[in-house]
Amino acid sequence: METIEKIPDKMMAAVLMGPNQVELQEVETPSPGPADVLIRVETCAVCSTDVSLIAKPFAGQPPYGDFIIGHEYAGVVVALGETVDEFKLGDRVAVEAHLGCSRCRNCRRGNYTSCLNHGNRKKGHRANGFTTNGGDAQYVINHINTVYKIPDTLSFEEAALVTNLGCVLYGFETMGGFVVGDNVAVIGPGPLGLISIQAAKALGAGRTFLVGRRDAPLQIGKANGADRVININKEDAAEVIREETDGVGADIVFESSGNQSGLDLAVKVAKRMGQILLLGFAHEPIPADFAELALNNKSIHTVRGESWANVGRAVSLLKQQKVNLRPLVTHSFPLSQIDEAYKTYTERKDGAIKVVVKPNES
Amino acid sequence: METIEKIPDKMMAAVLMGPNQVELQEVETPSPGPADVLIRVETCAVCSTDVSLIAKPFAGQPPYGDFIIGHEYAGVVVALGETVDEFKLGDRVAVEAHLGCSRCRNCRRGNYTSCLNHGNRKKGHRANGFTTNGGDAQYVINHINTVYKIPDTLSFEEAALVTNLGCVLYGFETMGGFVVGDNVAVIGPGPLGLISIQAAKALGAGRTFLVGRRDAPLQIGKANGADRVININKEDAAEVIREETDGVGADIVFESSGNQSGLDLAVKVAKRMGQILLLGFAHEPIPADFAELALNNKSIHTVRGESWANVGRAVSLLKQQKVNLRPLVTHSFPLSQIDEAYKTYTERKDGAIKVVVKPNES
Amino acid sequence: METIEKIPDKMMAAVLMGPNQVELQEVETPSPGPADVLIRVETCAVCSTDVSLIAKPFAGQPPYGDFIIGHEYAGVVVALGETVDEFKLGDRVAVEAHLGCSRCRNCRRGNYTSCLNHGNRKKGHRANGFTTNGGDAQYVINHINTVYKIPDTLSFEEAALVTNLGCVLYGFETMGGFVVGDNVAVIGPGPLGLISIQAAKALGAGRTFLVGRRDAPLQIGKANGADRVININKEDAAEVIREETDGVGADIVFESSGNQSGLDLAVKVAKRMGQILLLGFAHEPIPADFAELALNNKSIHTVRGESWANVGRAVSLLKQQKVNLRPLVTHSFPLSQIDEAYKTYTERKDGAIKVVVKPNES
Amino acid sequence: METIEKIPDKMMAAVLMGPNQVELQEVETPSPGPADVLIRVETCAVCSTDVSLIAKPFAGQPPYGDFIIGHEYAGVVVALGETVDEFKLGDRVAVEAHLGCSRCRNCRRGNYTSCLNHGNRKKGHRANGFTTNGGDAQYVINHINTVYKIPDTLSFEEAALVTNLGCVLYGFETMGGFVVGDNVAVIGPGPLGLISIQAAKALGAGRTFLVGRRDAPLQIGKANGADRVININKEDAAEVIREETDGVGADIVFESSGNQSGLDLAVKVAKRMGQILLLGFAHEPIPADFAELALNNKSIHTVRGESWANVGRAVSLLKQQKVNLRPLVTHSFPLSQIDEAYKTYTERKDGAIKVVVKPNES
Repeated sequence: METIEKIPDKMMAAVLMGPNQVELQEVETPSPGPADVLIRVETCAVCSTDVSLIAKPFAGQPPYGDFIIGHEYAGVVVALGETVDEFKLGDRVAVEAHLGCSRCRNCRRGNYTSCLNHGNRKKGHRANGFTTNGGDAQYVINHINTVYKIPDTLSFEEAALVTNLGCVLYGFETMGGFVVGDNVAVIGPGPLGLISIQAAKALGAGRTFLVGRRDAPLQIGKANGADRVININKEDAAEVIREETDGVGADIVFESSGNQSGLDLAVKVAKRMGQILLLGFAHEPIPADFAELALNNKSIHTVRGESWANVGRAVSLLKQQKVNLRPLVTHSFPLSQIDEAYKTYTERKDGAIKVVVKPNES
Repeated sequence: METIEKIPDKMMAAVLMGPNQVELQEVETPSPGPADVLIRVETCAVCSTDVSLIAKPFAGQPPYGDFIIGHEYAGVVVALGETVDEFKLGDRVAVEAHLGCSRCRNCRRGNYTSCLNHGNRKKGHRANGFTTNGGDAQYVINHINTVYKIPDTLSFEEAALVTNLGCVLYGFETMGGFVVGDNVAVIGPGPLGLISIQAAKALGAGRTFLVGRRDAPLQIGKANGADRVININKEDAAEVIREETDGVGADIVFESSGNQSGLDLAVKVAKRMGQILLLGFAHEPIPADFAELALNNKSIHTVRGESWANVGRAVSLLKQQKVNLRPLVTHSFPLSQIDEAYKTYTERKDGAIKVVVKPNES
Repeated sequence: METIEKIPDKMMAAVLMGPNQVELQEVETPSPGPADVLIRVETCAVCSTDVSLIAKPFAGQPPYGDFIIGHEYAGVVVALGETVDEFKLGDRVAVEAHLGCSRCRNCRRGNYTSCLNHGNRKKGHRANGFTTNGGDAQYVINHINTVYKIPDTLSFEEAALVTNLGCVLYGFETMGGFVVGDNVAVIGPGPLGLISIQAAKALGAGRTFLVGRRDAPLQIGKANGADRVININKEDAAEVIREETDGVGADIVFESSGNQSGLDLAVKVAKRMGQILLLGFAHEPIPADFAELALNNKSIHTVRGESWANVGRAVSLLKQQKVNLRPLVTHSFPLSQIDEAYKTYTERKDGAIKVVVKPNES
Repeated sequence: METIEKIPDKMMAAVLMGPNQVELQEVETPSPGPADVLIRVETCAVCSTDVSLIAKPFAGQPPYGDFIIGHEYAGVVVALGETVDEFKLGDRVAVEAHLGCSRCRNCRRGNYTSCLNHGNRKKGHRANGFTTNGGDAQYVINHINTVYKIPDTLSFEEAALVTNLGCVLYGFETMGGFVVGDNVAVIGPGPLGLISIQAAKALGAGRTFLVGRRDAPLQIGKANGADRVININKEDAAEVIREETDGVGADIVFESSGNQSGLDLAVKVAKRMGQILLLGFAHEPIPADFAELALNNKSIHTVRGESWANVGRAVSLLKQQKVNLRPLVTHSFPLSQIDEAYKTYTERKDGAIKVVVKPNES
């Protein structure tokens, strides 16, 4: 196996040992299969999904003691599997989490994030940071389908977040993808909401609205793609959107708050024939006004992950500097301080939006 | 104006005089505009929407005393507007309810049932039986966009129901329209559910499931397109569908029950990446398991009416004898007994499914 | 009828009197119908289609002596039809040429530029500058469906060209519309080609190639959206595109040269599964390599005009300053010098790209 | 490895030894990989593509002496690869030719028949009968992605032809797939044309036209799905189609003749906004009337193989008895008479349409 540098036999990694119990351990450095690359991880971001699965295992998650967390990461290709000529040693790369089995009905149609063999490693499914080892480690292996070359102009911090943009772009594609001049409302100014607003603008959307409760993230949105921000503690969002769209409503609504009032607002402000994308969702069933949806021919879409190779499209937008993820990366820690990284993220310390860990820095 | 026969100046019509107060009156026979035809109504069916708007007016509905009900009808063209050469006198025709304004953003893209000028007669919108006069009368005028020639082999009773099939086909088209080999589940064996099952089969669907509580309509479904009927009082529908689809679930689910358990079942049995169409809906907000939807990339679609000219496609399927609406027409009354017609329908007397009125029979 | 100013009874207009015989005449100022507006034309651009139909009438064209030419124009709304509240007096507006009949099978699905009643004024079809009077006059009437409000920041010169951008956007929409990160090649650096390159970039395309023979327009493309320009007199375009797309070819090819070598190149450089849009076309049948197309699952698309309301989307992109049409407007003449305007355009005098006429300037 | 029966070490196979030189040889029976099954071939059909590649090798074809021909076959699963639980021993199965690499840009979107690593066995691409061994042998291995279980009611003769129907269905899907009530014209009554007519009807098409020169196949079409057959030696096809579609033309045209007059007719009879699918194609560039296409917004589509898992849909239609391939299988030979089989096919002996070989019969 060709490598770029001497790969150590052992590496440091954040292993999940029990509920909310992440431990730094020295483990064996993994070795890439025929269609894999070995990546030296430069940056791995914390995602709310990480927080959830650390607290309570997801379906298909490896047992405690045998699972390295982290699915949003970027780094450098340092070894190539035997059939790989799509990448070369030294390539700076971003990744996506999902590798489908390539053999179920969904994968065969390109819907690999919705693989019907989820968690079945033997049949080929992998989801790094979910069902296979992730990026909170010095090294990680990725199948080439989940790896994307990034330009030198893109920092690893931004590149680590690219899967979020891929997810948003998959959302747009799911709903048709041609939104030039369309009015787009985004509910919830969290990371995905802030990225959605930027993506909408990058695709040529008409008027963009960002709705939330906290001024700080709304102002970041204002500076990055939102034509109009609405603090629902101060204004009636439905009324504002209605008025500023000639009474029609938003063509597309991204609901990323995941709560009842966000959903209610989404259903209400989507125009007749409008489309709603759920980027966030409540974990318990919540009521929705289906009469409003049905009488107005509105639809509700969802996205599982960043399917249809949209991480590649995301990298392109970043390369073109049409989306800027830099303002979202507010904090950085070495791997040794991963606990502090998670704490900063979950407690939104110092206005934390995205927090990253650097496994190969000390 | 060219006519086929002497058109009387006055005609009998069922006029809505107040809440749940339908009265037979002699009114002036209407006269077609430049792009209209005058239809002698042979059959007009009762729809649950009629029942609703008779009880409580819909948005855009004309005032009491000035509104003839009925939107599912068929008849014969007896007079032509001055620019009409698309039809000729004597043509047997079916209709659809919605004529868009042709000038709003939705109409311009072909989405005329979701016209943004709904109820605005001056701008061109009409919806016979909703915002303009309907078919429970001896004559009615229709813009040619809402009229479809039917073959001699098709009875007026069946033709009066064609808008239901148009609505179902619009649902299929909304979700892609290519369902050859796909597994389709239909929840709720009412008229729309029974038509959905037949339409699914006509489009080449794979295995079709019809789910309900009452054996009688389920048996009608069994005889007309359902590969498998499931009485939920006797079997676990989710379990049956799961088992008989190799554990995958239904590619497409039509939810036409409009109640909580129907919605719950729809969300549950749709496969990962599956699509749900709401043909029925609750009038109050009801809870839905959005986590199940989002984690499995499922979507919820709705249809307002029979858009995209799907009534034309519906007539074609009837002509090809791939869908048979005859078994659904269980009762027929002359216009003079319209009250009895509605009573039979709402009380499901004698296993009533669809009940029709014949305005020109006595 | 409400008007913004005193509208003169007579106006100056460029009337087509015979083959290649355009004559300035004083004619009656037209009066808007119920859903029309009267526009005072500020700028009307010359299009190659104008040149063609002046030389030899198109299907549906009014007789000599009764036809005002010009279909690319912009101006100010100065009178409103009786049902119009979508616009107000004084609105600065751009237009599109096609108004469908709203009643044929194509129009009903939103495909109004392909109206099956083309030229049938009685049934509602109009195409200003083709089958009804156009914009090389002081005033013109437009149905509101063909009128789009423009922002104050947009000059009438640019606004007059907007239908070209609408046409290109309709092309993108026809082929899916979601081209983020896709490689796009444009053959032929004429006005439509130069606009296509900009539009591709505005939609987030990946690498864009502009191919031609003349350095001057290629350099304009280079300054406005083309990542790579290829002068086929100096380089092998197929080879360059192949190399710079990792051997794959272009995802999308716009062929706007209309000649044999352009078509050959388009077929060749489209990737396997690639899409080709014909913006230009030869007037006589020309050979194409269908084996290359079929063996590689490539498709050929066309656009008739700027359908699906894409002029509205075009105005949005101009408003967002993502497309800049200013560099294309190289020459301007008063209406009295319309002959000189056409001559400048057809002879490409002084590097003429788009030439405009100003009917209300002297 | 689990097997259903004793698998012999050696088997008989038709090996391509040189141009037009097919030789029966005893070769080693192949062994399935982890995701493969071993199929005992019951029937393998002759396709015109076989005739072509036997005469002159296709790109990626194995060297003479090392290549077993045949890509249209069906049989019984007799051994399972180690990860396979999707099939069981004894399953009767049909196949498709193409297995993509699952890693190129096209494969990742589900477009595996247009794999960019065509012929690259190491990266995972296989196309049995093209780049890897085919079905004119007693046994063959297939990756499970290319295998489809068939019902007992379906004969192996019909099942061997299923890839043709899959190809036609992929064509329909490529063009939208929802053709209920649409008028469909098929040019060329060869096997693919005859199957296209049946498929059109099975999808609910409106009026179907089959165009050709020879009465015998036209009559088979007449008996199997064609509402109207047109012998162009006797009637003007363009005129007939125009008249019988109210002057509009066909919504969809399948061109399967592959010659100039077929293409000309296709371009002409497609309606404004119509779509043309090339199932056949000339091997040399031939002229096409692009002006007619462009002025009428018509498009030309192609299909490479039976992508998007349409063989699965094809099996469903056969199971539902909506398509009947039996009338197309006119001749059958044991493997030992494969030369006679090819001769019968290429010379159209005794009205031969499809000719099959039975490798395990003597």
